[in-house]
Amino acid sequence: MACSRYEYVKSYELDDRILPNVWIVIRIDGKKFHKFSNAHKFEKPNDENALNVMNAAGIAVMQEFRDIVLAYGQSDEYSFVFRKDTTAFKRRASKLLTYVTSLFSTSYVMNWPKWMDRQLVYAPCFDGRTVLYPSDANLRDYLSWRQADVHVNNLYNTAFWKLVLESGLTNQQAEERLRGTLSADKNELLFQEFGINYNNLPAMYRKGTILLRKRVVQSANDDQEKGSQAIVPIHDDLIREPFWREHTEILGKYVPGKYVSEVSSSPRLLKMQLSEELQLAEQLQDKANIS
Amino acid sequence: MACSRYEYVKSYELDDRILPNVWIVIRIDGKKFHKFSNAHKFEKPNDENALNVMNAAGIAVMQEFRDIVLAYGQSDEYSFVFRKDTTAFKRRASKLLTYVTSLFSTSYVMNWPKWMDRQLVYAPCFDGRTVLYPSDANLRDYLSWRQADVHVNNLYNTAFWKLVLESGLTNQQAEERLRGTLSADKNELLFQEFGINYNNLPAMYRKGTILLRKRVVQSANDDQEKGSQAIVPIHDDLIREPFWREHTEILGKYVPGKYVSEVSSSPRLLKMQLSEELQLAEQLQDKANIS
Amino acid sequence: MACSRYEYVKSYELDDRILPNVWIVIRIDGKKFHKFSNAHKFEKPNDENALNVMNAAGIAVMQEFRDIVLAYGQSDEYSFVFRKDTTAFKRRASKLLTYVTSLFSTSYVMNWPKWMDRQLVYAPCFDGRTVLYPSDANLRDYLSWRQADVHVNNLYNTAFWKLVLESGLTNQQAEERLRGTLSADKNELLFQEFGINYNNLPAMYRKGTILLRKRVVQSANDDQEKGSQAIVPIHDDLIREPFWREHTEILGKYVPGKYVSEVSSSPRLLKMQLSEELQLAEQLQDKANIS
Amino acid sequence: MACSRYEYVKSYELDDRILPNVWIVIRIDGKKFHKFSNAHKFEKPNDENALNVMNAAGIAVMQEFRDIVLAYGQSDEYSFVFRKDTTAFKRRASKLLTYVTSLFSTSYVMNWPKWMDRQLVYAPCFDGRTVLYPSDANLRDYLSWRQADVHVNNLYNTAFWKLVLESGLTNQQAEERLRGTLSADKNELLFQEFGINYNNLPAMYRKGTILLRKRVVQSANDDQEKGSQAIVPIHDDLIREPFWREHTEILGKYVPGKYVSEVSSSPRLLKMQLSEELQLAEQLQDKANIS
Repeated sequence: MACSRYEYVKSYELDDRILPNVWIVIRIDGKKFHKFSNAHKFEKPNDENALNVMNAAGIAVMQEFRDIVLAYGQSDEYSFVFRKDTTAFKRRASKLLTYVTSLFSTSYVMNWPKWMDRQLVYAPCFDGRTVLYPSDANLRDYLSWRQADVHVNNLYNTAFWKLVLESGLTNQQAEERLRGTLSADKNELLFQEFGINYNNLPAMYRKGTILLRKRVVQSANDDQEKGSQAIVPIHDDLIREPFWREHTEILGKYVPGKYVSEVSSSPRLLKMQLSEELQLAEQLQDKANIS
Repeated sequence: MACSRYEYVKSYELDDRILPNVWIVIRIDGKKFHKFSNAHKFEKPNDENALNVMNAAGIAVMQEFRDIVLAYGQSDEYSFVFRKDTTAFKRRASKLLTYVTSLFSTSYVMNWPKWMDRQLVYAPCFDGRTVLYPSDANLRDYLSWRQADVHVNNLYNTAFWKLVLESGLTNQQAEERLRGTLSADKNELLFQEFGINYNNLPAMYRKGTILLRKRVVQSANDDQEKGSQAIVPIHDDLIREPFWREHTEILGKYVPGKYVSEVSSSPRLLKMQLSEELQLAEQLQDKANIS
Repeated sequence: MACSRYEYVKSYELDDRILPNVWIVIRIDGKKFHKFSNAHKFEKPNDENALNVMNAAGIAVMQEFRDIVLAYGQSDEYSFVFRKDTTAFKRRASKLLTYVTSLFSTSYVMNWPKWMDRQLVYAPCFDGRTVLYPSDANLRDYLSWRQADVHVNNLYNTAFWKLVLESGLTNQQAEERLRGTLSADKNELLFQEFGINYNNLPAMYRKGTILLRKRVVQSANDDQEKGSQAIVPIHDDLIREPFWREHTEILGKYVPGKYVSEVSSSPRLLKMQLSEELQLAEQLQDKANIS
Repeated sequence: MACSRYEYVKSYELDDRILPNVWIVIRIDGKKFHKFSNAHKFEKPNDENALNVMNAAGIAVMQEFRDIVLAYGQSDEYSFVFRKDTTAFKRRASKLLTYVTSLFSTSYVMNWPKWMDRQLVYAPCFDGRTVLYPSDANLRDYLSWRQADVHVNNLYNTAFWKLVLESGLTNQQAEERLRGTLSADKNELLFQEFGINYNNLPAMYRKGTILLRKRVVQSANDDQEKGSQAIVPIHDDLIREPFWREHTEILGKYVPGKYVSEVSSSPRLLKMQLSEELQLAEQLQDKANIS
């Protein structure tokens, strides 16, 4: 059959190549995740396991797209940073955006049962957007913006849910109690009324999760070449200088850095990854043998 | 904490609103689905169940986004047509594209176990693209292009796999045997060597699947107002006129048409949908009562 | 010298091809023409000669770009309509936009001395923008919008300047006098106070100028093939149906229509054009002979 | 009259804001200037006066748009560099592109009689394009690319026209003579056959013209604050370091540098500018007094 008569419609697809030499940030956001977290009974203010489903999905994306040098997740959002000179998918905007969004989405669903003891009631949905940052300073400011955001929100939410769950206030009463308070006020409230030192709460809640590609070695003396490459979750302050001095590979010539980890004490996200990669390789091997 | 110092980075997000008054087509394509179908042992040349996972995902997208007037799926791709005057997400290109891609992706994973007796070995991934068509003729030509494509490919694949699976040719031998043949030749080969009348093969394989929003009624005499609205899968020829004369709601003022179905004989995709909607409503009701 | 080391910078030029099958409208606007018209002592509220400089520039653009089917000018703006299927400059947005803007600009300066008895004090400047209209109805509404605009503004300006120039009001007094008045009020004011029937004022002031490509013939009986092609200025109502019934070539298959003109009575803009084309052809002929 | 019914068409104008924090380069190119230069009998291979018409137009643009930090012209093209953080016209792409293109175009026509003893036979036309460069290195490479281009072309053209005008070769013979020659060969040819040391030819022909905004002072000891600001034409090598070390204001915090000029020996382009600014100011003053 002659396709040719209709094929002209292909010319309506327009080129959407991204400007070279800029940081490409793709940010994924959960669609109506307030409703989603209620429907799935997430713990308040933070559900560690639900956050790890996000992190596992982030790791899956970063494993697939080697030109992502850093990812940053908090709450129901995840940002992926492609290095400036990536030529992945010829820098076509739609390809990059949808591959990342799609793989994040499917990985979220597939990782759900590994962390959650409830079943998914309905399919989650994420939107994605692409933002371009020309300079390194812009990129750092972007990431600082997202980390400042988690700080502000998490401090508020921690105080809010303490008031609701432990002091028995209604949502509205808790809102009114917190209206107009500064950070210091909320820190004080947590300490005075609930004996909580906010800075001692888990770093993942306060700082979000930074994913970096590293060579994982057993001890600092190990030759980096030995370790297996993995996506390492880190919960550090990325606003200040020390983070960037330690992980120079992000802004510099991109070569994964070294990450020292005694396997026994490394985060479950990392252990799963190392063992899953092994399993997946074996499974694919099996399939290949059969077919 | 002052977010304001970093908030300027938000201004780097540029407006991507789509021109008004054009058909918005979003097409989803499986990433490396040749490998994916091998890893999951899809039947050749068509795996009815795997196609229905695609269809179920297409239905999920169309249920969520009410301004999609038609979807069309074949092989590992699905096209969604938003009506010209949709204002969904303010016509922001990235929002529309990523919501559709994400929901299709997660729905694919969640519908997998309903149709497939194997587990997913790894997370599937889809890309999405947006194409704009100004005129109704353009839109029909686009859909004709995709349906002509499935015809050409399916006829070839049917002959190819018959030669490989039944005549014992190697892949390469089968390729050589078919090189340069016309449609008529392949029809003849199927008939002479395998006793197959190509036109009697399942319409879903030959025509792909068209999804339309309809009011489902029990008999032609039923008042349309009675039926429940559903996304109805159809395997018709959309290249020719009769399809467009029957489903005038697509190009006209958009009001879902009537679809006559004795539930007992309606496709499983439709039955599942009608019963699942009921179940989902109940589940959500339960959650709401608990929380 | 090796250019190659630097040539990569060319890859930073991105494709800006315009969607096929839409009307392409390019509108030129004078930059700070309020100041410009004061510096060049334009007559108020309308300077016939200054408008004809605009018209002459519009004609020059339409002569050069054969795919412009209609142009419409009023005040310090001019709109050019490229037919939907133009492939001029491969539909590259910047090329189309800047060629039209540039040629309009240079033609404005070159036509100035043919109509104005003062010299240009400084270089005028115009901005240009591209707007896409998918349907014929959109295009007609666009043109109606611009013609409705000239009506509103010209009626106001006519009343305003009568009050200032003949009744001796200050600008501010005239503004206050007209604040909140309806069209009918301003018509009445012109008639009662100045004996002016607004509808008898020159059509160019009230309706703007429509440029159409026509075959100009001497009498209605002439064979159209005989006439020379020219850009004909028309001052009609393009909001209502009759205009579109008369000039069916605009929206239909584009073939210039017939325009009956006894040369003696045709507008100077048309006469100049017919004779200038002749002169230019001769001049270019001369140059060619020399070089 | 109700404009409102048509005003919806305004919503078809889409936002085209340029990404922040990138160098914005707008390059103007003459349309069919080969024909134009023949029709106006430009001297070959370089017409000093015609180049100065281009330079005068470039200066006019740079005087109007204060955020242009450098312009570079050669042959029939001119590039304008807006500083990274310009907010001129809210960085709207079409506005920036068309204002620059239009003002360059009208200034070209208006400056023509100041340099040329022939009249314009027809209106010249220029296209314009916008290219974005994220880093300073990109910008320097862009400018180097254009200056390497003028070197290659001018050396070729100089040899070509010597062969045609002095040795009496036909165009085709000259082409054949030069085919495959390297720069060194052409230098040698000019020296051996025509006694010309290429490096002694006017720098404007070999290097093009760089326009910089400077405070013009009479002697190096003058306080910079005293001088009047002007656009200074320079014919230097901008590929190498010294240029950038001398004019640090271009890439640095933008403050016009100092330019030492004894008025008597400064280029006519600069003298005209200083005196014209004065005249224009006076003319505008006069108009203001009259109106």
